[in-house]
Amino acid sequence: MRWWGWGEDGHQVSLPEPALALLRDELGADLSARHEPVALEAVRLPDPRLPASARARLEAAVGAENVVDDRIARVAHAAGRGYADLVRLRSGDASRAPDAVVAPGSADQVRAALEACSEARVAVVPFGGGTSVVGGVEPISDGFEGAVALDLRRLDGVARVDLASLTATLEAGLLGPEAERRLGEQGVTLGHFPQSFEYSTVGGWVATRSAGQASSGYGRIDDLVEGVRLVAPAGEVRRRPVPASAAGPDLRELVVGSEGVLGVICEATLRVRPVPEVRRYEGWSFRSFAEGREAFRVMEQADAAPDVARMSDEEETRVAVALASAGGGAAERAGRAYLRLRGHEGGCLAITGFEGDEEDVERRRLRTGALLRAGGGIGLGRRPGEAWLRSRYAGPYVRDELLDRGLLTETLETAASWSRLEGLYEAVGAALRRSLAESGTPGLVLCHVSHLYRSGASLYFTFLARQSDSPLDQWRAAKSAASEAIVAAGGTITHHHAVGRDHVAWMPAEVGEVGLDLIRAAKERLDPAGIMNPGKLLPS
Amino acid sequence: MRWWGWGEDGHQVSLPEPALALLRDELGADLSARHEPVALEAVRLPDPRLPASARARLEAAVGAENVVDDRIARVAHAAGRGYADLVRLRSGDASRAPDAVVAPGSADQVRAALEACSEARVAVVPFGGGTSVVGGVEPISDGFEGAVALDLRRLDGVARVDLASLTATLEAGLLGPEAERRLGEQGVTLGHFPQSFEYSTVGGWVATRSAGQASSGYGRIDDLVEGVRLVAPAGEVRRRPVPASAAGPDLRELVVGSEGVLGVICEATLRVRPVPEVRRYEGWSFRSFAEGREAFRVMEQADAAPDVARMSDEEETRVAVALASAGGGAAERAGRAYLRLRGHEGGCLAITGFEGDEEDVERRRLRTGALLRAGGGIGLGRRPGEAWLRSRYAGPYVRDELLDRGLLTETLETAASWSRLEGLYEAVGAALRRSLAESGTPGLVLCHVSHLYRSGASLYFTFLARQSDSPLDQWRAAKSAASEAIVAAGGTITHHHAVGRDHVAWMPAEVGEVGLDLIRAAKERLDPAGIMNPGKLLPS
Repeated sequence: MRWWGWGEDGHQVSLPEPALALLRDELGADLSARHEPVALEAVRLPDPRLPASARARLEAAVGAENVVDDRIARVAHAAGRGYADLVRLRSGDASRAPDAVVAPGSADQVRAALEACSEARVAVVPFGGGTSVVGGVEPISDGFEGAVALDLRRLDGVARVDLASLTATLEAGLLGPEAERRLGEQGVTLGHFPQSFEYSTVGGWVATRSAGQASSGYGRIDDLVEGVRLVAPAGEVRRRPVPASAAGPDLRELVVGSEGVLGVICEATLRVRPVPEVRRYEGWSFRSFAEGREAFRVMEQADAAPDVARMSDEEETRVAVALASAGGGAAERAGRAYLRLRGHEGGCLAITGFEGDEEDVERRRLRTGALLRAGGGIGLGRRPGEAWLRSRYAGPYVRDELLDRGLLTETLETAASWSRLEGLYEAVGAALRRSLAESGTPGLVLCHVSHLYRSGASLYFTFLARQSDSPLDQWRAAKSAASEAIVAAGGTITHHHAVGRDHVAWMPAEVGEVGLDLIRAAKERLDPAGIMNPGKLLPS
Repeated sequence: MRWWGWGEDGHQVSLPEPALALLRDELGADLSARHEPVALEAVRLPDPRLPASARARLEAAVGAENVVDDRIARVAHAAGRGYADLVRLRSGDASRAPDAVVAPGSADQVRAALEACSEARVAVVPFGGGTSVVGGVEPISDGFEGAVALDLRRLDGVARVDLASLTATLEAGLLGPEAERRLGEQGVTLGHFPQSFEYSTVGGWVATRSAGQASSGYGRIDDLVEGVRLVAPAGEVRRRPVPASAAGPDLRELVVGSEGVLGVICEATLRVRPVPEVRRYEGWSFRSFAEGREAFRVMEQADAAPDVARMSDEEETRVAVALASAGGGAAERAGRAYLRLRGHEGGCLAITGFEGDEEDVERRRLRTGALLRAGGGIGLGRRPGEAWLRSRYAGPYVRDELLDRGLLTETLETAASWSRLEGLYEAVGAALRRSLAESGTPGLVLCHVSHLYRSGASLYFTFLARQSDSPLDQWRAAKSAASEAIVAAGGTITHHHAVGRDHVAWMPAEVGEVGLDLIRAAKERLDPAGIMNPGKLLPS
């Protein structure tokens, strides 16, 4: 992945003219100039300060060739892929880069590396794909003798696939596509497709309670973890994989979502499914976001949810249409005319996706369709569904282009019970709009619902604005306003992006002071020197 | 509930003659004499030793009328309802009875009571329905200044029902039938029906990770907990109810299954469902347990499991037929002849149950039926299903009768992945048979599979034997042999009975020493004086 953005060089996207017009008109953006990242050589990088003795011990632990501190390695591990990360990296600020990148090749090497760092008081940041959007992998080493990124890419094995029990034991450093390729060889899939899929890892998913785009059907990663192995400085937590147990508190759930602060997730046994024979994705239109959400609620509570279920609000639908409208031909114009006729002009686009065998997909699709139609939906056929499927990982590429054009673009997500969802939606949208207006850069706020539960759903917000002169302050103000609104409206501070550094301030509201104390108590047992991913998850 | 057994006086069951013949013939039982429990007045009860100052503070906390230490109250709170508990109680041994029974009327009163007991170093046993079968509520007060049972029966409110989100916030002391009655008034059900349903409580279910008989459909209690409130001596853990979150480790899962050692679960927000319009229960026959289990696996992994799915092994089927055969008429004889013809003689009985609206039940029933037939099953119609439904809570009543007849009768349960299930089944059965034979009392070992997961299933064992002269040693030997076999075969030490005192010895194997340390770390934060349910869950 290129050090200043997403994807590899040569994967740039370009925005169609109607999209540029919309951004100019509605955000007052001056899109004429390109705001390119600085050159790698111009990035400001502190001198490495890893004590020589610590470095020697790390080299002994993992092999000298697996401890590197060249410029590109350090810059590539200096931050995640959140908006603030990219703003700083592109401007040449890698001041928090790790002193070295250490790549263990086994759980034993992880343990040895952690022991070395504990003794030397060197902070350790477990690093999977580095795609955190909440500051989860930026080294914070104040008070330590240095910081290393523990890059898990060499832990990339498939330890075991149990086809009768439909479980697979995967090493933490496996990237999404490689994990799916290896599982696919045996006819199974994890079905876990977050937007970061191409560059994120199994361990990262487990460490952050990731939810894939198809999690309404396949389940969140927390639903998929049957067993897990965490290597910590002071020992190892190993939950033997069993389908269910009443043997006390579930320690899996302490490891899942621990974001590197308790130790390093080296391996997880995950529930898998047969590779689907058929994938069927379709579009739906609803007159309003409220109407569509209610239809989704009824569908979900009837156990009739598709594997992918998403619905954009009016604003996100409008912007998405503009972004995609470059090639709008006669058929699409006719389609829009039809929707207008049915009172759906300015309505909301939803996507449903079904995966499975032919018969299964058809049976479920018909049942879901009947419920959505009863809830006011109009089926739009496969074209919008397939368009979504093609672009499911496109977001971060588009973000690079928007950053290049001098725009703020950020996403955040929450979840709440169905009865609180309307209030949460209104409150977060209003908070973001108000904050952006106060920065003198009125913005666009888009939202979709994308993960359904019997008791509630998630809301995923995207906001766009012209960058102010203090882009980090502008971003921080908007993020804080949204977070305050989420907490006040009874939502969770994060549905699948995790806590990292960006949400730490709202953890007391989320779990209470006693709850934080319980996590701290676990950390003290597992990481007495406090070296594991300092500054993340837990307020200091 | 009567102090020496299950149910209320007047609910005795009697065994039909074919059952008595089977027990005589196969266990060598002498069923001529009754072994009645001693009279309440003859129960040996230590003098209460609660310090007067502690008692005064408890009275101030909950009201003097809610602190009692009369004979019947103390005996009724002296133990749970496991086999060993009943053997001791019936023989007049209540030597571990609490010094007093304290009944708080609110979470604030719980907190005040815990503070009083912390300062006075009095052990506290949270007490719901008192139906633990693993020694979970027996006071162990060695090293303390006394012990109280904290009876939660006054925490019996329904705080809130959210019909849009299908959640209900219930207080911990609500008994099963009353919880269902109150929810039913609003058209919803928790669908949680453990065998102890009539006498167990919401808080007890959450504290022990209970699984109801219909948990294949409705979910285990751990699946149903959306929010929870734990009052501990040193503070309160409150998880706000959200459908899903990525905000760090899930502290709900530390509270669920905590068995009173961390604090008192005062309230839980649980996921509910609409009261089903239709309940349809049916019987199935399979040629062998192995064939039936494989059919169940295929069914479950096709997402086609009924809400209740259970299958008895050959031995349990044979004994159940004998127990129920008293009234076997011409139709049943004809049915058995038909099964013999189809090669199902000596086969296995399975029960499937569907609950929902008419259309939903019918659709699912047809699909499940097709899969079970493809797996070798023969449908037996509604009669066996309805017979099971009528007797679903009968087990503990029958146990009282068996105890009266001088028989050992105990149950235990485990779970494992599908690929380990056969080995687990064989190993546990062999261990129990061997242990009973070594006690000079060869036994019957029955088993059923009763909770299905995509990755595995539970096994529930019942064993019966003539009581030896040292019934507690005989029981302990069999229990240990089964537990060792479970651990060695990769099962969990308990699928839904919890740890209590009986499974403590196998917790190191279950979660590892580091895992135990993590639970201890949580306990030290929440219960620094260590007064909460000592001797349970955690090895000392």
